[in-house]
Formats: sequence, C-alpha cells, structure tokens
Amino acid sequence: MNKHQLRSMGTRSSILEAATASFALHGYDNTSVATLCQNAGVSKGAFYHHFSSKQEVFLELLNNWLGTLDIQLTDFRDEEASVPDSLLSMAGVMKIVLETAQDQLPIYLEFLNKAMRDPQILRLMAEPFQRYREYFQTMIEEGISEGTLQEVDPNVTARLIIAIAIGLLLQGLVDTEDVDWDSVTRESFEILLNGISRR
Amino acid sequence: MNKHQLRSMGTRSSILEAATASFALHGYDNTSVATLCQNAGVSKGAFYHHFSSKQEVFLELLNNWLGTLDIQLTDFRDEEASVPDSLLSMAGVMKIVLETAQDQLPIYLEFLNKAMRDPQILRLMAEPFQRYREYFQTMIEEGISEGTLQEVDPNVTARLIIAIAIGLLLQGLVDTEDVDWDSVTRESFEILLNGISRR
Repeated sequence: MNKHQLRSMGTRSSILEAATASFALHGYDNTSVATLCQNAGVSKGAFYHHFSSKQEVFLELLNNWLGTLDIQLTDFRDEEASVPDSLLSMAGVMKIVLETAQDQLPIYLEFLNKAMRDPQILRLMAEPFQRYREYFQTMIEEGISEGTLQEVDPNVTARLIIAIAIGLLLQGLVDTEDVDWDSVTRESFEILLNGISRR
Repeated sequence: MNKHQLRSMGTRSSILEAATASFALHGYDNTSVATLCQNAGVSKGAFYHHFSSKQEVFLELLNNWLGTLDIQLTDFRDEEASVPDSLLSMAGVMKIVLETAQDQLPIYLEFLNKAMRDPQILRLMAEPFQRYREYFQTMIEEGISEGTLQEVDPNVTARLIIAIAIGLLLQGLVDTEDVDWDSVTRESFEILLNGISRR
C-alpha cells in the first residue's frame, strides 16, 4: 500500500469514527456532513471523495456492525461439547457481547429507528436475526439427535434463546439498579436448559 | 365541564395525537413546534397555552405511555389460578400487548433514543421495568410458597420473564419472516414453566 492509499484509508476511518460518535451522541438527524467533517478533521472535498452522502456513511456503519455479529457467532460453539454445555458456555460469552453491545446500543437504536421508516434498512437488520435463528435451530436439532434435549420445536426454541439474549441486553441498558447481569444471564440459561434438557 | 374547557381539552389531545404521529414518522428531532401546530390544526398561541416546549409534549406522551403499562399489568393476574397457570394465560395476553406495542414501538424507540442521552428520561423509563420485575418476583415467590414452582431465584426468574417478553417483541418487530408469534410466545412460556415448575 502506498502513502496515498494509507492517507486515504485514514480519512475514511476518521469519518466513520466521527460518525459513530456523533450519531450516538446527537442522533443521525442532528448530525450534518459539515459536523462530521469538522469532527473527523477532514475537508468536505475529502468527505465527498469517500462518501456520496451521510446516508452512505450510515449504511457502511450498519454493514460493519452486521459484520461483527457474524464473527461473534462463529466463536460461540465448541464442537466437542454437548449442546447443553455449549449453550451454557454461551452464557459466559454473553458477558462480552453485553459489554460491547452497551457501547454500540445508541448507534444500534439509530439503526432500528431508521429501520422503522425504511423497509430496506429493516431487511438488512433482519438478516443477522435470521442467521442467528438458523444457527440455534441447527444446534437444537443436534441436541435432540444426540439425545441431550427433549423433542422441543427447534425453531421456537431458537427464537426463545434469541429473545432471552436481546431481552437481558435491553433490560441491562434501561435498568438503573445494581445488578450482576453475568449471573442473571447464566441462571437464565440454566432455567432454559432445565426446561428443554432430557432427564 | 364547560364549553371552554372542552375545547381546551380538544386542543391538548390534538397536539398529543399530532406529536405521536410526527415523532413516530419523522423522529423527535425532525419535528418542529410549527409542524406540530400545523398537523394538529392549532395556532402557536394555543400550543404555548398548553405546553412550554416540544420537550414537554414528549414527556407527557412518555408519561401516558408509562400509564398504559400500569393498567396492562393489573389485568394480567387471575388471583384464583395457580402461578404456573397465571403465567401461561399471560402468554395469551401477550398477543394484545404485542399488537399494541407494534404501533407504539416507533415512539418507544424515540423515548429510548432520548434516554440514552438524558439520565432523567432513562430513570423514568426504568421505573416500569422495576415495577414489572417486582410484580413477577412476588408472583414467583407465591409459586414457590404454594409448591407449584421449584426453589428458583425469584429476582432472576422475574428478569428472565421480562427478557422473554421484550425479546419476542423486538424480534417480531425486526423479523421479516412470516411467523405465528402467538404460538411462539405460548410455547416459549411452556418451556420456561417446564424449567421452573415442581414435578
């Protein structure tokens, strides 16, 4: 990579960083291209060299965010472990997911907000949910085959797992009480497993 | 109530209705007092007779919304039924909650968005969560006393119930697949009950 390309990449990521901060702090609608340029320390010319509009910056942030969801998903599973053990160790992974999510939630809410008004963005945001759902559905099917799980509906159970994860996440965000979400998550998954494990 | 008071109430509710629609459709930040007046068909003078600012309209909408949560809560419980039966019949109530929530979610996201940037609004929004949590916690404690539930942690189980409700709600919002959320909710609560019931 030559000097010019390096500088160009720097400009791009400066803009994306500034946008993440501004959208989260002041909201998408309250952030102008001028503000983005100022906070990123780039000229308008440089901005429009990289992005055609504020919306394009938004979509790139959204795509990056969707990308991180993909990576976390593949880290979940220990192929050697039984399905119930895998699900329990996921509760441990949740801690990290929760921590990163706390930082990303303001911008995620901006995404969701726009999705309510834009069917295309809604479809983009629905994709990771479907992937997660398919992922857990396969996992539940494996648990039933290996005989560790009862004959529950794999599709419903997958949605339930996702619901618990999202629900605890959002509660942790709104709740002003001092709660050990780590152990709440672990115990919640223990209750779930108690409900679906074969005895 | 005299004619003047009636007209005054009409003005107030016209403004609130216009605000609900505009905030949901265009967002809080993109809605000006002028737009609100235009959509409500009231003069600026009439507006400022009722509200000191756009923020005050927002807070009244938030308070009204929090009020509806209270009412739904007391409707949940059939005092004659056992705790597991009550929880299962709640899954039926969820259908109505889900349907109204779908309409209210855009404005709720606006609330949450502002809460991320305003600790006072966050505290307001945390209150119903705490009430729900206390409500379910008491219910779980009763279930343990009456011998229908295992000795689970009532606090954690209450948070789990709320998590499932919120999580299914949000999934229903984002999910573009054709899903019978009614039966997903019922089956999810059956799995939960299977996990906490005494056998």
